[in-house]
Amino acid sequence: MDLKQWIRDVPNFPVEGVIFRDITPLLQDPKAFRYALDELEKYCRTKEIDVIVAIEARGYILAAPLADRLGVGFVPARKPGKLPWDRIREEYQLEYGMAALEMHADAIKPGQKVLIVDDVIATGGTLSATKRLVERLGGQVVGFACLVELTFLNGRRTLEGYDFFSLIQY
Amino acid sequence: MDLKQWIRDVPNFPVEGVIFRDITPLLQDPKAFRYALDELEKYCRTKEIDVIVAIEARGYILAAPLADRLGVGFVPARKPGKLPWDRIREEYQLEYGMAALEMHADAIKPGQKVLIVDDVIATGGTLSATKRLVERLGGQVVGFACLVELTFLNGRRTLEGYDFFSLIQY
Repeated sequence: MDLKQWIRDVPNFPVEGVIFRDITPLLQDPKAFRYALDELEKYCRTKEIDVIVAIEARGYILAAPLADRLGVGFVPARKPGKLPWDRIREEYQLEYGMAALEMHADAIKPGQKVLIVDDVIATGGTLSATKRLVERLGGQVVGFACLVELTFLNGRRTLEGYDFFSLIQY
Repeated sequence: MDLKQWIRDVPNFPVEGVIFRDITPLLQDPKAFRYALDELEKYCRTKEIDVIVAIEARGYILAAPLADRLGVGFVPARKPGKLPWDRIREEYQLEYGMAALEMHADAIKPGQKVLIVDDVIATGGTLSATKRLVERLGGQVVGFACLVELTFLNGRRTLEGYDFFSLIQY
């Protein structure tokens, strides 16, 4: 199944010169959505996983069904100011300026095996920041899974030494 | 299973005087998360559903596994500026000021049966705005499902004439 059929290329979004890979047509189509989850699940099944950590917001759409299918816990990494309890924060570079992600300090128990999930890997900044959050809490990152990889941005390089899987490459 | 065991009450978040019902401990526990999804799925199975519309961001965590389980499409209602394609917008009142949600103009086909899902219903503003988005696109709202209902805010009243289900009430 060629999932690129269900990905819409939107030129000049969010900024001039960028082609945005819009996954909403894929999510909207039950067959394509399920097929994508099946393939991501196959990757997950090659790992021992206790917890899936998902990156706000589109990462949740893939990570939550995977956690359900695998019967493992779900932990959200959130944008600053959203989590109500004791939390830790990691910053990362955007094209212009900085951004940050937060996780509850009790979200991961030391030694837990963690898979990190997002919809798209671009430069790898958000995935790397999430990895640092997990490791600060004593979690062991066993891999990363993304639906779409923008290979020309070489984000995978920032995750060197870790296992990384993407289903669709541009 | 008393799911309130897995909901953390955080006083004075996000503002003084409010008790925030934090669902992250529930999501983190595979048994509690699955049980909550099982119960929400039971409600969904009483309806004929073509599409689940989910509200950003925590709504995605419940709605995506439900769409997966039911084999129906998933459509995100998003905060302004996130969706890249032709979109429609509805505003709604917050305690102070206004907020808005957007949906892609091609997200729903006329006549499709739509269930709207969010994590928490408070005043009902976001659910009502999402209902208006769906109906402007010709969708038929067959119901609303939330994990947590803050009954003292009476948000259910704003959805009068529609079917509404919540799993946990405060």
